[in-house]
Amino acid sequence: GAADEFRPGQWIRDVWRFAKDDPKRVIFALKVGLAVLLVSLLILFRAPYDVFGTNIIWSILTVAIMFEYTVGATFNKGFNRALGSIAAGVFAIAVMQVAMSSGHVAEPFVIGFSIFLIGTVTSFMKLWPTLTQYEYGFRVTLFTYCLIVVSGYRMGTPVKTAMDRLYSIAIGGLVAVLVNVLIFPIWAGEQLHKELVNHFNTVADTLEAAVLMTECVKKYLADDGTDRPEFDKTVMDDFADEPAFRKCRTTLNSSAKLDFFANSAKWEPPHGRFRHFFYPWCEYVKVGAVLRHCAYEVMALHGCLHSEIQAPYNLRIAFQPEIQDATNQAAELLRSLGKDISNMKRGLQTTLLKRLHSSTERLQRSIDIHSYLLTTTHHEYSSPKPPSKPLDLPDPTQNPVPPTIHRAESYHETMRKQQKRLYSWPSREVDEFGEEGGFGGGDGGEMIRRMRALESTAAMSLATFTSLLIEFVARLDHLVDAVDELAKMARFKEEEI
Amino acid sequence: GAADEFRPGQWIRDVWRFAKDDPKRVIFALKVGLAVLLVSLLILFRAPYDVFGTNIIWSILTVAIMFEYTVGATFNKGFNRALGSIAAGVFAIAVMQVAMSSGHVAEPFVIGFSIFLIGTVTSFMKLWPTLTQYEYGFRVTLFTYCLIVVSGYRMGTPVKTAMDRLYSIAIGGLVAVLVNVLIFPIWAGEQLHKELVNHFNTVADTLEAAVLMTECVKKYLADDGTDRPEFDKTVMDDFADEPAFRKCRTTLNSSAKLDFFANSAKWEPPHGRFRHFFYPWCEYVKVGAVLRHCAYEVMALHGCLHSEIQAPYNLRIAFQPEIQDATNQAAELLRSLGKDISNMKRGLQTTLLKRLHSSTERLQRSIDIHSYLLTTTHHEYSSPKPPSKPLDLPDPTQNPVPPTIHRAESYHETMRKQQKRLYSWPSREVDEFGEEGGFGGGDGGEMIRRMRALESTAAMSLATFTSLLIEFVARLDHLVDAVDELAKMARFKEEEI
Repeated sequence: GAADEFRPGQWIRDVWRFAKDDPKRVIFALKVGLAVLLVSLLILFRAPYDVFGTNIIWSILTVAIMFEYTVGATFNKGFNRALGSIAAGVFAIAVMQVAMSSGHVAEPFVIGFSIFLIGTVTSFMKLWPTLTQYEYGFRVTLFTYCLIVVSGYRMGTPVKTAMDRLYSIAIGGLVAVLVNVLIFPIWAGEQLHKELVNHFNTVADTLEAAVLMTECVKKYLADDGTDRPEFDKTVMDDFADEPAFRKCRTTLNSSAKLDFFANSAKWEPPHGRFRHFFYPWCEYVKVGAVLRHCAYEVMALHGCLHSEIQAPYNLRIAFQPEIQDATNQAAELLRSLGKDISNMKRGLQTTLLKRLHSSTERLQRSIDIHSYLLTTTHHEYSSPKPPSKPLDLPDPTQNPVPPTIHRAESYHETMRKQQKRLYSWPSREVDEFGEEGGFGGGDGGEMIRRMRALESTAAMSLATFTSLLIEFVARLDHLVDAVDELAKMARFKEEEI
Repeated sequence: GAADEFRPGQWIRDVWRFAKDDPKRVIFALKVGLAVLLVSLLILFRAPYDVFGTNIIWSILTVAIMFEYTVGATFNKGFNRALGSIAAGVFAIAVMQVAMSSGHVAEPFVIGFSIFLIGTVTSFMKLWPTLTQYEYGFRVTLFTYCLIVVSGYRMGTPVKTAMDRLYSIAIGGLVAVLVNVLIFPIWAGEQLHKELVNHFNTVADTLEAAVLMTECVKKYLADDGTDRPEFDKTVMDDFADEPAFRKCRTTLNSSAKLDFFANSAKWEPPHGRFRHFFYPWCEYVKVGAVLRHCAYEVMALHGCLHSEIQAPYNLRIAFQPEIQDATNQAAELLRSLGKDISNMKRGLQTTLLKRLHSSTERLQRSIDIHSYLLTTTHHEYSSPKPPSKPLDLPDPTQNPVPPTIHRAESYHETMRKQQKRLYSWPSREVDEFGEEGGFGGGDGGEMIRRMRALESTAAMSLATFTSLLIEFVARLDHLVDAVDELAKMARFKEEEI
């Protein structure tokens, strides 16, 4: 059964690729092995064991628990461990003084109550939003306190035991830190830096994929007439751009990861390219948030393209050059921002931004000039009215003006033909109308009115696409500002011109 | 200095409110206190201590490490701990057989190498994406293995030590589980259930807030003429709906939280309202993902409202009733879905969905009928053309047709007046034009062309708003499907009619 599904060859290849994708993974694993080996040597050799006795096993525990992927996270855990242990030690000594002076009968009650109290207080405190990042520290405080107090009460030599244990914990921590920092260190700051740059590229890719998708649909629609039932499948599953969107979804869900890296990076000393103290890691998080804000717009674009209604082929092809141009500019700006961050340069981006704005403006003007296309069947309403005073519109539900249908017949024909290949919208409702039939179902006028509403939405989907693109560009302004702020605070070097 | 900022009264009130907001927090804290107290009693009393010796302190460690907020997370950690310990024990016994048979000189080398190997392999495995959730288990395997092997080598009584330790860990685990399950249990499933329902309400609130916001802006714009410099501040900071958007952002970043709860909930036995085995917790995660997909659209709506260009007052007020209606229907549907999940009922939602679709359709038709308003200044282009054949459009960049400006003067006047209170878009560019001046700055025609592009975008922003709303409604279809799937798999009871 299960043995049939287990293919060792495939499995080994997967593991190999996983390791090759990011050799840091292998380095990390080897480092952990080395650290536990080093600390075990302390026990395998006789000398340290003779000094510390069985307490030396705490150094193993410390290494296994403290060793994290990045230097910053290891420091963070070490700090939590150290502070937690110290706090526990101070409490324990204080309480034991009280307990011993309270007499032989009361002593266990004092100890028991203090344990209950410490357990309750630390557990409540670690739920406090700003303290959740020190969760591990509270845990350490709790169990260290219990260990010291209880073993002090039972074994009698609290200070000696506590000190031996503290030394072995310190030895374990030292080994973990030294191995982590000195041998191929993996810096959380570097990871954060790369992660953010990747997100820039992902958003740029997704944006380009979105427009590539309109291309694909265009190409598909170009061979008119043939009936392909697998259309929906093609759109949903196989398009080459889907990976881009999946990656974009990762970007959208990246906040926790960026927060974690930034939190870890704060603990790291200046290193590599991040040479000054108090490097503004939290600015990376802010830039990430603004980038995500831009990505929402891209996801809405995605929705626009995946939606059941598409603008007619003619419309889309009419504005294709402008859309293409604006998108390329926007993607280029994103990539350039990412590259600047990656190289820690402070490019001013004014040229790119200006070019992007002017190409967006061109798209806007083009939509503006050809906007009659978006409302093509409604020329009977186009007589100029003065819209500057409050409009007195007829309520369409009260007074449904019957639209003139005879003029737009040929357009309807095309639409109806295309309809086969478009999703019906809203799919559910169409089914219901099909089933019910009674509610004006046989009435051709009602049907055509529905069709026209659909057409109008189809044309509007282009307007939406454009508006979203423009809004995206507007948000890029904020992104440029955020990156600029980061560049200023992180003292990226000015680009030489 | 710092003492001035520390106000005990305020602080106590904050803590009190934090505890009152969710009394489960206090319950959890008291439970931890109780669990560590119980396990400490094992040592404070003489009998268990006499049996297990110093190894009994492992039960304290186990409680402190295993006790988690929810039952599921505690079980998960317990499982990790148990399986990790067992795996470590098996490895250790196997390796020690090999080591002992390899002779006195080779023994430490065999042990050292095995430690290095286990450290490397477990660390590499826990990076594997599907295994990251068992991260703690790998850690436990590592340190337990080291402890058994090393103390076996040094102290000679590996089996007795290991067994004593295993018993005390088992006792600690049992105490942690019993206290967690028997005294006011906090179920991860229940939390997940509530969290998801909250997200439904948040998205509904945000949607309504968005439309309320158009109301607010409308109200503001209603008192025409007066110049208020604090407009931007009001829009950005003080609006009553901002909390809704902030909450919505939490919803968007909720994937990690939902995953964690679902992962924990899998470990819980049937309980409370979730009475059958293999309850489909992962369906909750799927519904959450679809809901987030809807929320992207709401965030785009938010962007539409916060953007620097707004549709003119007249336009917005014209479509206000339809927009209001559609939004209310959508919010109602969302709330009803949330309520159904909350009550574990299987409502069919057909009525609501049908009503929502018809009101969306009404909005669409209304936009359709009055679409001339969106392109109001371009009647010279409105002569009917046959759009069924490929359009041969003039390239606007090659051949910029000068728009007829004289007819739309009065509209321009109004726009210019409103301009003061609208943000300029894109702010950067406008500044640049102000600075440059040379590039057609003095030319009135160029200026007016820019103005017109702005107007058109302003009108289009309404179309975008509508399209986004419609797309949101289309996504609600998927949401209804996802909720239906959840209801089916979780065997929610059918609603009696």
